Amino acid sequence: MGSKLVVNNYGSFDVVFTHGNGSTMYDVNGKKYIDFLAGIAVNSLGTNYKPLVEAVQKQAEKEIHICNYFMSDVGIQFAEELLKATGFEGIYFGNSGGEGNEAAIKLARKYGYLNGGEKRRVIYTLENSFHGRTMATLTATGQEKFHPAYFAPYVEGFKTIKANDWDAIKTAFDDTTAALLIECVQGEGGVNIVDAEWAKAAADEARKAGAIVMADEVQTGFGRTGSLLASDELGFKPEVVSFAKGVAGGLPMGGILFRGKANDVFKAGDHQSTFAGNPLACAAGLVVLHELQKPGFLESVKEKGEYMRKEIASWKNPNTGDVRGKGLMIGVDIENGKSALELEKKLLANGLLTSTAGKNTLRIVPPLNISKEEIDEGLSILKKTLETL
Amino acid sequence: MGSKLVVNNYGSFDVVFTHGNGSTMYDVNGKKYIDFLAGIAVNSLGTNYKPLVEAVQKQAEKEIHICNYFMSDVGIQFAEELLKATGFEGIYFGNSGGEGNEAAIKLARKYGYLNGGEKRRVIYTLENSFHGRTMATLTATGQEKFHPAYFAPYVEGFKTIKANDWDAIKTAFDDTTAALLIECVQGEGGVNIVDAEWAKAAADEARKAGAIVMADEVQTGFGRTGSLLASDELGFKPEVVSFAKGVAGGLPMGGILFRGKANDVFKAGDHQSTFAGNPLACAAGLVVLHELQKPGFLESVKEKGEYMRKEIASWKNPNTGDVRGKGLMIGVDIENGKSALELEKKLLANGLLTSTAGKNTLRIVPPLNISKEEIDEGLSILKKTLETL
Repeated sequence: MGSKLVVNNYGSFDVVFTHGNGSTMYDVNGKKYIDFLAGIAVNSLGTNYKPLVEAVQKQAEKEIHICNYFMSDVGIQFAEELLKATGFEGIYFGNSGGEGNEAAIKLARKYGYLNGGEKRRVIYTLENSFHGRTMATLTATGQEKFHPAYFAPYVEGFKTIKANDWDAIKTAFDDTTAALLIECVQGEGGVNIVDAEWAKAAADEARKAGAIVMADEVQTGFGRTGSLLASDELGFKPEVVSFAKGVAGGLPMGGILFRGKANDVFKAGDHQSTFAGNPLACAAGLVVLHELQKPGFLESVKEKGEYMRKEIASWKNPNTGDVRGKGLMIGVDIENGKSALELEKKLLANGLLTSTAGKNTLRIVPPLNISKEEIDEGLSILKKTLETL
Repeated sequence: MGSKLVVNNYGSFDVVFTHGNGSTMYDVNGKKYIDFLAGIAVNSLGTNYKPLVEAVQKQAEKEIHICNYFMSDVGIQFAEELLKATGFEGIYFGNSGGEGNEAAIKLARKYGYLNGGEKRRVIYTLENSFHGRTMATLTATGQEKFHPAYFAPYVEGFKTIKANDWDAIKTAFDDTTAALLIECVQGEGGVNIVDAEWAKAAADEARKAGAIVMADEVQTGFGRTGSLLASDELGFKPEVVSFAKGVAGGLPMGGILFRGKANDVFKAGDHQSTFAGNPLACAAGLVVLHELQKPGFLESVKEKGEYMRKEIASWKNPNTGDVRGKGLMIGVDIENGKSALELEKKLLANGLLTSTAGKNTLRIVPPLNISKEEIDEGLSILKKTLETL
């Protein structure tokens, strides 16, 4: 299919998709797949969701892109509604999760400099976290496998702390700390949920030391865990939240929300991006936001997630271990020395799209509006495939 | 209009656009503007260009995003046609110019490591260049004003060389050089065109030292200068080209093309991006590529550019100095101590969208398919505004 021409840096599977409907996708051979992946937690409303498609179609005729010297009517509406819905006070748009976290890192550094000079430049991230693939976000990522010698030198000024380690937070933060960046649920690192009490205590300690607290919600934000932001439920109310993935229902968009001490840090000229906040992505973002705000929508995300986790656990399949998650962000540990990647491949062959989080965890992140029928069809494939693993 | 909610990091003008047609835009008050900006060289086919709009509308119904574990039919077609048209051998997609250059930097570092170990890690960029706003691309940017103390520490391993400095290239490159990154026409740095003979000689010297040569074509690529890639005409045939801006006619897309020694450097897992190469942007990219390939299209870009430069120079307005550029990337020096920003603001008030490149240069980068009528209407506004500056 010519896919060899595109750099094979994803360990790509040899499947070529042409179209989809809801949480069902089709490849070039007409084969059908149930979508437990959503383009890695991106297609929050599935594929070909009519209100989203129509908003994109209509906006494409008006204006796709303007540039950030100016605003668009739809951009203002999206920013206003987003801030109102989240309780944040300002927003910066970028085009991806990596760009959102780059913005967060720059904001944290400037905050540190303004509140402690050159000394206050350390950004703490969690061990096992994932923050992106740009040089700075790669450095911020708390997993050694992402730091091969051939990309060095990495960026100075990052340290890691172990999630849920109560001793560590007593001594880690001081007047060299600019920010603590918490990934609420570690998406790439094994679907590990940070403990709410610990996150609050860590945030308190970091703030006591004069730092700001930031949440990486690239994967958890915008309904994925059953609340608009996962940090809402964890209760530590960060000064900065980075977002991306599902925010615009499939269109590239990322950025940061900020409030409190993180306000007024960025000034004109400090940071920008040509495509950021383009009207097309904002029009799509409005549809996603309105859907999430419908009565019962977020509750249904929680219910679907609970249902799926309970079902999977109820099989007591010997190849599975812990089944965990929050909302429709689910991790299933694979046991008996079997590899999650091997299972992912077999599921793909059997018509179910999933992902992995580390070597031993299957990751399930379907569209948030997946139907009961599609859930059950997907679970049935998962059950049968696990039995023959 | 609520635009204060969005971080004012662009020195944004208080204009809110709602729609456009061709190279004419309209704001919320119904005011009309001639578009000599194209969203900063992004809207290569203008606004509401029917074939592009229809391609986006059709693709939105099929699939907007899949994720890079897989390919899409339209993604394969775009990659194949793009490689055939440019003569490159591989492609990596990202979502912006910054992400394209981050990929180029990572590729260069790995190339250096594989061909000289930890020692070979220096990437040379040009003085006065601009490569992006992420930490690494900001560091690569050869302008001190982009390196304020509050974002430090920057990324190690970057050096600059002065464009068109023949002495410098004799001694700069050695076994510590991983790559030379050339911005063909400095878009942000004053619309300065690199000398083709010097670029070729610099590339030769860098290659002799064992480095690869990369071109930043984020702004110059995809027809902007009247050829598919500006480096084609400069003649140094880089191993890596970064692109973004106009590639998908307004949809966020960036990336790198690579060939020769830059092939096979990235392996599975080295680099990726969730949104990269999404089917929606690829569908738009195909329309742009097909337009650029129509007989006479690129020639018309050159002719329009020459016409505009000659017209502006012919006015001999005392507030203007050198008028230069390549294709539809035009710089007009502003003299008599007048500021380009002041002129840009007056032009905006008078209904003409432009930009600046440094303090003293007006930058003109209209849609590539701008009509003769729109060019003349815009030039007439420019002429009158210059007379009252």
